[in-house]
Order: sequence, then C-alpha cells, then structure tokens
Amino acid sequence: MAKLYFRYGSVGSAKTLNLLAVAHNYRQQHKKVLLIKPALDDRFGKNNIRSRAGLEQEADILVDERSDLLKLDFKGIHCLLVDEVQFIPALVIEQLREITHKKKIPVICYGLRTDFKTRLFEGSARLMELADSIEEVKSTCHFCTRKAIMNLKHSNGKAVIDGPTVDVGAEEKYFPACYSCYFQQVTLHAAPSQKLDDTFAPA
Amino acid sequence: MAKLYFRYGSVGSAKTLNLLAVAHNYRQQHKKVLLIKPALDDRFGKNNIRSRAGLEQEADILVDERSDLLKLDFKGIHCLLVDEVQFIPALVIEQLREITHKKKIPVICYGLRTDFKTRLFEGSARLMELADSIEEVKSTCHFCTRKAIMNLKHSNGKAVIDGPTVDVGAEEKYFPACYSCYFQQVTLHAAPSQKLDDTFAPA
Amino acid sequence: MAKLYFRYGSVGSAKTLNLLAVAHNYRQQHKKVLLIKPALDDRFGKNNIRSRAGLEQEADILVDERSDLLKLDFKGIHCLLVDEVQFIPALVIEQLREITHKKKIPVICYGLRTDFKTRLFEGSARLMELADSIEEVKSTCHFCTRKAIMNLKHSNGKAVIDGPTVDVGAEEKYFPACYSCYFQQVTLHAAPSQKLDDTFAPA
Amino acid sequence: MAKLYFRYGSVGSAKTLNLLAVAHNYRQQHKKVLLIKPALDDRFGKNNIRSRAGLEQEADILVDERSDLLKLDFKGIHCLLVDEVQFIPALVIEQLREITHKKKIPVICYGLRTDFKTRLFEGSARLMELADSIEEVKSTCHFCTRKAIMNLKHSNGKAVIDGPTVDVGAEEKYFPACYSCYFQQVTLHAAPSQKLDDTFAPA
Repeated sequence: MAKLYFRYGSVGSAKTLNLLAVAHNYRQQHKKVLLIKPALDDRFGKNNIRSRAGLEQEADILVDERSDLLKLDFKGIHCLLVDEVQFIPALVIEQLREITHKKKIPVICYGLRTDFKTRLFEGSARLMELADSIEEVKSTCHFCTRKAIMNLKHSNGKAVIDGPTVDVGAEEKYFPACYSCYFQQVTLHAAPSQKLDDTFAPA
Repeated sequence: MAKLYFRYGSVGSAKTLNLLAVAHNYRQQHKKVLLIKPALDDRFGKNNIRSRAGLEQEADILVDERSDLLKLDFKGIHCLLVDEVQFIPALVIEQLREITHKKKIPVICYGLRTDFKTRLFEGSARLMELADSIEEVKSTCHFCTRKAIMNLKHSNGKAVIDGPTVDVGAEEKYFPACYSCYFQQVTLHAAPSQKLDDTFAPA
Repeated sequence: MAKLYFRYGSVGSAKTLNLLAVAHNYRQQHKKVLLIKPALDDRFGKNNIRSRAGLEQEADILVDERSDLLKLDFKGIHCLLVDEVQFIPALVIEQLREITHKKKIPVICYGLRTDFKTRLFEGSARLMELADSIEEVKSTCHFCTRKAIMNLKHSNGKAVIDGPTVDVGAEEKYFPACYSCYFQQVTLHAAPSQKLDDTFAPA
Repeated sequence: MAKLYFRYGSVGSAKTLNLLAVAHNYRQQHKKVLLIKPALDDRFGKNNIRSRAGLEQEADILVDERSDLLKLDFKGIHCLLVDEVQFIPALVIEQLREITHKKKIPVICYGLRTDFKTRLFEGSARLMELADSIEEVKSTCHFCTRKAIMNLKHSNGKAVIDGPTVDVGAEEKYFPACYSCYFQQVTLHAAPSQKLDDTFAPA
C-alpha cells in the first residue's frame, strides 16, 4: 500500500510551490506524476496550478463531486499531486485513499486547513480523518513573528468572521495569522453581532 | 501566548502513558500541572487517568459541556494536560485555546483522531482546527507491520462499520489498524447493508 | 526494508518510558520485541531498563564494541528497541542499520542527542547519519518555559562546560535547558579558562 | 529568543526552492530577509542561489571560515535564510546560533545531511547539535519508491564510496537513494578495496 499525505498550511505558505517542487523532483528521476486540482478553482485559468512565487504548470485532472478517479487508468504513474485540496469533495478524497490502496500510488495533497471562520473545509476534514501522514507547511503570522495557523479575512479593510464565503462586490483579502493576532483583529473589528464567541459556537 | 497541542493516536498507542510521562517531567522540575479528563470517561473510576502499561494518577478536573474553564484560577500552573480529549465538547476545546492566549499556559491534549466509522470525534475535530501543533503518537497495525491510523471495531468477533457507538450487550473490542487491514476486515465481515462505500458516504 | 528510527531528547524527557510504552504495545498485539542497552550503563543494575516515572523491564541484549548483532537469530522478532543509544558504538549502529535491511526488522532507538559540551555522542552521531526517521522527544527547560535542547551539567553546584566526562568525587547533576538558559548559566558560572567561545571552538 | 532550524534533505529534494518560497512569503508581508550561502559554492555564479526547478535570487552574504556574522548590523531583518549550509564552517553555525539568541532573529538553514560516504558534513553536524528544530525535506529514492536518505555518488558511471571528495577529470553524478538501494549499488559497483564495511568503519 502507498501512502496518503495531507500537507496543510495557511494562506501564503507556498503550498503550491512545494507541490511544483515535488513534481519537478519526480520528473528529474524520469517518473511520471499527475497534477490534480478542483474544477471550481479557476483563479489562474481553469487548468493552471500557479505559485505566487513564480512557477506554473498545467493541471492534468480537474475534479468535482461527479468525478470517479477509480475509473481512470493510472498505469505508469508514480505519484498524484493534489493542489487546493480543501475544495475537493469528501467523496473524491475517499477515492484518493482507495488509489493508494488499490493502485499502490502515493497521493500528496496540499491545501488549507480551515476557512476564515476557523472551520475545516470539506476536503481538509476528510483528509484529517484518512491521511497516513499529516504535515504542516509553515508560514509566519502577517502581524507578528509567531507561526500562522489561522486565515484572517478582511472585507473592505475590516476583519470579518461571519457572512457569506463569497461576498460579491466586497474587496476581500486573506492574511495568515497566529491565534493571538486573529483573535485581536476579530474582536477589534467585528460588529457586535459578530463577536468571536458567536462564531465559535458550534453550528 | 502559549501553545495548544493535539497529540493524536490510535487505540493502544500509549497516549495516556505519554501524558503521565509529561506530567512526571514537569513535577521533577517543581512545576505544577493539572490533569483534565472528560467526565463521561469512567472506565477506571470516575477520577482516574490510567495507562494500560501500568501507571495511574488522579485527574484534577473533570469536564463536560457545562464546564467553564476560564472561570478557574490557574495561578502557579505551568501546563494543562488533557486525556481522552476526543470526548471533550468543542466549546471546552475553545476554552482551552483561550487559556493558552489569556493565561499563557500551554495545553497538551491526547486523544483519538477518529471513531470506528473513520469520523473525527467532536473534540478531535475542533483541535484539528485550532491547535498550534498536530503531532502523531505512533503505533503498529494489529494485523500487519504498517503504522496504524484507523480504529477497527469488532462486535461479537466481527468487524463493524455501522451501528450505535455503544452497543449494549455486545462484546466489543477495538484494534489499531492501517487503512489496508481496516478495509479488508470491514469488507470481509460487514453485512451487505454495511458496505464500506456506504459508510464512507458523507452523512 | 524496515526502518531505523532515532528518537532523541534531553535528559529527563521520558525517553525510557516511551520505549517501555512501545514495548507494551507490541506485546499487547502478541508481537515479540527485544530490548537492547549498552553494557556500560549499569545505573539501575546491569540488565535493567528503568524509567524515572516508575516502570522497569529487563534488557534482553547488552552491547559493547565487540558485539556482532548480525550473528544473532532474530526469528519471530517484530521490533528491536534500544535504550541509551548514545552510548552504543558506531559500529553497532551500523549493525542495527543492516538488521532493518537484511532481517526486515524495524529498530527504534532512544537516546540523548548531545553531551554537556554540546557535542553529539558516538551513537547519536551515527544515527543522525543513518536513520530513516529523526524524531524529537520533547521536554521543557528546567529554568524557563521553552523547549529544552541542551543538557546542562552542574558540578558541585556550578555549571561546567569542560573537564572530564566522569569527574570522580564531584557531585554531578544534569538539567534539560534551552539554548538561552544554557548559555546564561555557563557564562555565569564558568571559570575564565572555560569560556563558551573556547568550548565552541572545533576540537 | 528566536529559533534555529535545520531543514535537511538528500540531493534533489528541492531544498533551495523551499528556501526561496520562504523568502517570498516574508517579502509578501513586507518583512526583510537576508540570504546567506557559503562562498565556496559557486556553481551558479558566485552570488546566486538557484533552484533546479527554475527560481533564482542573489545571495546577500557569502560566508567562509573567516566570517564574523555577529559584527553585522541586522536591524530591521526578520529572518536569515541559509542555503547549502552543509558547507558552512562549524564556527559560523555557532554565530548563527548566537544571532537567534542575541539579536532575536530566526535562522532557517537548508542543506544536505551527509556526503556520499554517509558522513555528516561539518555544517550539518554542528546544526544537528545546536538546532532547535530538525526537519526533513523529503524526496524519493532514484531507484525505487521509498524515501531517499542517502546521497549516492556515481563516478564514471559506477557507484563509489571512497576517494577524494572532488575527483578532477571524473564525470560525477549524485543520486538520492534509500539505504537499501544505496547498499546494493555500492556492493555491486565498489572495487574490492572499497567494500562498504570499510567505509562504515569509524575513521
């Protein structure tokens, strides 16, 4: 059996660059990899996996909730690399788990741990349950020198902890933050109806 | 700010012995620790934290969903150690997170990652979201030589993947298992109505 | 091929208790382990592996520089566990490495990283070169709240960074320390001829 | 006190790309970093830090055994990033350790663990002794699917385990390898006078 890896990190932790580095290493050894990303992530063009630090490659497979990866032929493939895995449906995470077992191909997934409300994404949650190895891609808090573990959202310049995930018309920005800075920003900026205690209450 | 740790492992990975070892080390340095466990875990007596390998200590605090740890005075305390953290309510996990921030006390939590249906426990899920550090306490698959990542349940000698969490009258046993052995046992033993694919379908 | 692990930690980090916990887990699964220790470590009786936290077991094999572990029959053995590995000769570390390869038995070694002069021990150095996995057993600095990474020696109540490894007649004590506290203690207590800069100069 | 990190990996594990990714992340947060490399590494031009995957930056500081980093002014610097740290003299590693302590600047070092004879490099050895955190940058064995931990040298197409570090006139190539493949290649190709047992004998 091959292994399933979840390498999680905050926004701006160079997860994609790490993925492209691993792809490069396999190819240097004349081994084939396939690059997978969620179909919904089309920021850099539908098919592109692009690191902010400057490298870019085309994705081989786009997945959504109708995907059935187990039907594909992975002959000659040495590794599957998944970018933005937080947006991959739980069902497809289970297919990736199966691939490590039935096809003996390692699967390395890169993605965010939680959203700006401190909640696991669907893909991240299933990986936290099924991965053989959970590894952190570290980055620094935008506001201090500690390690970032949260993703803070600014909407029109103010920290928000509630509201729709996509807020049409608002200028949105995400920052990596440690718990302490996340907490302070959110307490400072959040409207009375959006206190941290409310956010933290289980849905 | 102090740190929040989640040290997860399968059944039988000596998590409790690890916890007692950390407690011992702090006390050797004349530093005070508090031992915390969920009130519902009364296998070894209501207040006892006992390792199967032979050590035992009394818990200082029992918590349930009505607990408010932030009201307690933690003066002079150097570390909080939490056992069986998977059974701790999400709300109390958030209190522990706050304690690292407001009282500057590190909190080290030991517990299972997932139940026998491969789902995160409530306390484990919130820790996977909020912990500064996610660390694995390793153990070996009961059935082969690979690392265990799942908890396989036998009920009356057969692997089960469904049914109530507590099955009164049944003889239950849990085994650490790798994904491959978990999958094989479950496929072998499960009744047609309990196929793995069903279990894996999102609730 | 099986794996070779080096789990290093400072004095008082409960390495031996961790080792005994792993032994316990294997035996719970009706798997056989062998416990190995250096012949020269006879603090708790020649054959005993004893944790300060309270557990104890007899060692199965004592090794020194004349040992040839590859001549032994390891049939039916699932794991080798090595305590105080820093005192094991480099040559025997290489035999352990061979055992993972030729006999397919995993070897898990516990020991100190460095001596009180900040230098790798012989066994630790060879493991740092050959281990598949280098893992830290964490503990806390005796003098503050940071993680300990050094081993500070007090001789007759003063921090020392030089002199013989065994100082007959002196009352010796070892403390886990972070770099900062180690540095401060050593600068404070060391005689002019034993400044840190001298110690740090390569031999 | 800030921390000293050693991120080690085999040849071709994209250590430099990881370093450049970290530099990029700091700069995105308008934080200043300094890039350091050994003066003797002039493969890509004296001052260049270049990843085989395609990114490149100029080094800010070149160091050799006469360097005294503690004399420099690090005002406004948030992080020091060191490439090819295996070639950095032990004395300079100690200066980096001091910088984390006296100037409170984190230092992240990337480099090889061992040479083709399985021996720690000078810089790597001192880091294995002094680093707060020892982390692996993983890559795959060139010859199989296991993790690489060794650096195999081919000279004129044959595996070698002895001889000068720089062999003028020979065509040299390095491969990442697991212990098993390293061992097999070396046993197969090495001349009788260069048996593995000899290599492994302590100097």
